[in-house]
Amino acid sequence: MNTEIIKVSARSLPKLTAGAIAAVIREGNQAEVQSVGAGAANQAIKAVAIARGYGREEGYDLICRPQFTQIKIEEEEKTAIALVVEALQQPV
Amino acid sequence: MNTEIIKVSARSLPKLTAGAIAAVIREGNQAEVQSVGAGAANQAIKAVAIARGYGREEGYDLICRPQFTQIKIEEEEKTAIALVVEALQQPV
Repeated sequence: MNTEIIKVSARSLPKLTAGAIAAVIREGNQAEVQSVGAGAANQAIKAVAIARGYGREEGYDLICRPQFTQIKIEEEEKTAIALVVEALQQPV
Repeated sequence: MNTEIIKVSARSLPKLTAGAIAAVIREGNQAEVQSVGAGAANQAIKAVAIARGYGREEGYDLICRPQFTQIKIEEEEKTAIALVVEALQQPV
């Protein structure tokens, strides 16, 4: 299982991010949704909630593990929130 | 297993919320962390990330299931984000 990183900003559209998460999960991988700041974190968590809806329709349950991670943006170290998303049951 | 609701605002301290989540989990229950708005959602997700650190020290992994939920605040219906948190392995 690979981990694919999806970066989310405050202006990201949660539905589009949710589609990206679902695509990663369908390939049998896990998604790490990274955000910096409250606006971005909010879009990230909404995206995971929407992706969970897609998963339900396809017969699997998406769970997420939130954790802090250090990322570099324009040579500056920032603390990001990473939501590691995976399917508890694989799609049938 | 009961579900205990923990309400989080933009001014909530993530460490305190994390302690509340850990207390619910230790009792063998699940926590539903509710927030309305970006600032509150950010504090909520930080609290879950911190609580996961406590869980690791105690030998269990906390996962969360984000979902939308309707709540009433001062007679007004609001869409909240609920982070349903549970332990994958129970504390040893």
